[in-house]
Amino acid sequence: MKANIITLTTDFGLKDPYQGAMKGSILSVNPSASVIDITHLVPPGNIIEGSLVLKDAFSYFPEGTVHVGVVDPGVGGQRRPVLIETERYIFVGPDNGLFSGAVEKEKVLRIIHLTNMAFFRKDRSPTFHGRDIFAPVAAHLSLGADPGEFGEQIERIEELYATPALRVEGLITGSVIFVDSFGNLITNISGDDIRSLDDRAIEVTVRGQHIKGVDKTYGDVRKGLLVALIGSSGRLEIAVNSGSASETIGASVGERVTVRVKEG
Amino acid sequence: MKANIITLTTDFGLKDPYQGAMKGSILSVNPSASVIDITHLVPPGNIIEGSLVLKDAFSYFPEGTVHVGVVDPGVGGQRRPVLIETERYIFVGPDNGLFSGAVEKEKVLRIIHLTNMAFFRKDRSPTFHGRDIFAPVAAHLSLGADPGEFGEQIERIEELYATPALRVEGLITGSVIFVDSFGNLITNISGDDIRSLDDRAIEVTVRGQHIKGVDKTYGDVRKGLLVALIGSSGRLEIAVNSGSASETIGASVGERVTVRVKEG
Amino acid sequence: MKANIITLTTDFGLKDPYQGAMKGSILSVNPSASVIDITHLVPPGNIIEGSLVLKDAFSYFPEGTVHVGVVDPGVGGQRRPVLIETERYIFVGPDNGLFSGAVEKEKVLRIIHLTNMAFFRKDRSPTFHGRDIFAPVAAHLSLGADPGEFGEQIERIEELYATPALRVEGLITGSVIFVDSFGNLITNISGDDIRSLDDRAIEVTVRGQHIKGVDKTYGDVRKGLLVALIGSSGRLEIAVNSGSASETIGASVGERVTVRVKEG
Repeated sequence: MKANIITLTTDFGLKDPYQGAMKGSILSVNPSASVIDITHLVPPGNIIEGSLVLKDAFSYFPEGTVHVGVVDPGVGGQRRPVLIETERYIFVGPDNGLFSGAVEKEKVLRIIHLTNMAFFRKDRSPTFHGRDIFAPVAAHLSLGADPGEFGEQIERIEELYATPALRVEGLITGSVIFVDSFGNLITNISGDDIRSLDDRAIEVTVRGQHIKGVDKTYGDVRKGLLVALIGSSGRLEIAVNSGSASETIGASVGERVTVRVKEG
Repeated sequence: MKANIITLTTDFGLKDPYQGAMKGSILSVNPSASVIDITHLVPPGNIIEGSLVLKDAFSYFPEGTVHVGVVDPGVGGQRRPVLIETERYIFVGPDNGLFSGAVEKEKVLRIIHLTNMAFFRKDRSPTFHGRDIFAPVAAHLSLGADPGEFGEQIERIEELYATPALRVEGLITGSVIFVDSFGNLITNISGDDIRSLDDRAIEVTVRGQHIKGVDKTYGDVRKGLLVALIGSSGRLEIAVNSGSASETIGASVGERVTVRVKEG
Repeated sequence: MKANIITLTTDFGLKDPYQGAMKGSILSVNPSASVIDITHLVPPGNIIEGSLVLKDAFSYFPEGTVHVGVVDPGVGGQRRPVLIETERYIFVGPDNGLFSGAVEKEKVLRIIHLTNMAFFRKDRSPTFHGRDIFAPVAAHLSLGADPGEFGEQIERIEELYATPALRVEGLITGSVIFVDSFGNLITNISGDDIRSLDDRAIEVTVRGQHIKGVDKTYGDVRKGLLVALIGSSGRLEIAVNSGSASETIGASVGERVTVRVKEG
């Protein structure tokens, strides 16, 4: 599996030298790599949010893409640097749960603990594995190096535990897991669960607000009104047409969301 | 017209998976495309500001560039997805006025309503045409597909109505249309109108502040002072040397600006 | 020296058309250039901070990379547009000190005052040399043009004066020179100076807080505690494990930091 596309998902921010240095480190190994930012604005150290962003973006890239993720509060400590080879992609980064959401539905072929220092930068900082380990490893992979060369195979990666939505008869109880830049509230309630219900009879409740029915798109309600829909990530989403649901109802990550089928 | 450069101008922000997914969607069709961000920080749903940023950046790209714009509050509704082929570029996005400023001075060859689903992603979300329609269409165009293949030709695109500056004898009345990151106030008064006047006798007035004369560059006045000049977009601009005009005089988009030639 | 990689370090922000126009201007000369953002979020006009970010990122790029820096409050005034050819890289931008930190340890071959307008855009704004001078010059350099063609050689560039850390016997006195997105406080005290001391006996003091010893990584102390370490840029850094040192102790750029070897 050889590719020339390397994506980056980090919490490095955009004002510091870190993401630039990381790109330089990649290009020093593979000058013709196409380095694509997924985001560098994961909140510092927030593995859960980093995991979500990566999960919702990675599968749109062509097969062979190397996805590097660095949200790594434990850098330099006990957590292992790893690569995860799946049937379509390779993921590179710290083994701290960052990749568990993404690889959930991928066919994992091998997990390698990165120990072969021949692929690392020679001068390494204990606090910047993104630049000194993950970047050069990703670049060598993009050049076609075999994953097996990078270290010994291990059996499993760390998993993030995410509380799933619960369904008990006609009631689904979930929560907001992400608030996007539009102020849309993305929940952990899957569209498949919703679609099995009768759309017109559904009532979605969040922070005391009741929304009747699940619509297709933001403009299905008048401007300024709340709308529930199956968002582009396949999850139940609560939005305000031409506004911010997060601001309108004062909800953020963790807010409880319920879906019930109203009788009669 | 074949090109390998695709630009993006969106309101997707930089922390969410959206712009990354869109790039993945492009690269899945054309892995060697060069995808360039103009901006992803258009204020959510602000078609006017998106239109201005695109208008001020697009013409610096080489001929054949495909410019994708997605500021699309009506996504999934009645507004049409379109491509606009001009003599030098192709624009792809929603037909909601976003491109009217950019194509104003371009020679438009064809406008195509995007209806040929063979060029779309198979699994499409009604709320993310950027990823599922505009990205793959742009990628196919960058590979050389003929615009005519994407749908039926239509006659016109939606126009944004922007109030023009008015000139009555020696008085020009306009307004601030954009505030940049430096706090410079960009107006809708064209440099050509200004240049036809006698520079030294001009007085620019904004929010009760009078600025005498039109200078060449920020450093033509002392630090902290207001200066009027013809900015890099060819419009009258009000700035503060080494400071923010917006903060200094408390002006933002919509603020009235007048230019008069002082007598005697 | 021919390369296809061009980096950008500017204070243009990410919401305006400026950085996009600059990339277009580069690609119009060299459509196959790989344009990499180091940052566009240098605080407006802050040459010192721009200099630091560039200094900490540039050396990770492959030889032959053209580094463009535009933090240019004096644009259009007396300061000279220059290129600096070193043994490994070429730097392009205003001669205002922005590059003095970066080239400090590089072997400078030639400094050229950019005067040959054949390499500039024909329609030039006096307030946007990034787009109209530095971008096309960098693009021509990336295509292999000889630095000597761009103007006459000059002897020296402007230097930024940065107060160095002082060492008097067992006491080092320095200051915070950069606060990164994690809230880590980067100082002007070099790791080499620290390493010459006895680690365990060191006490670092900032804003009344005393930190004992210099650790290797953030996780060497418990969450929420202050830690001093040699950061990824080789400088003494003060951090909070899983937190922001800047917020925790209320320190920002300019804050005094002392390192002493405790007796007994």
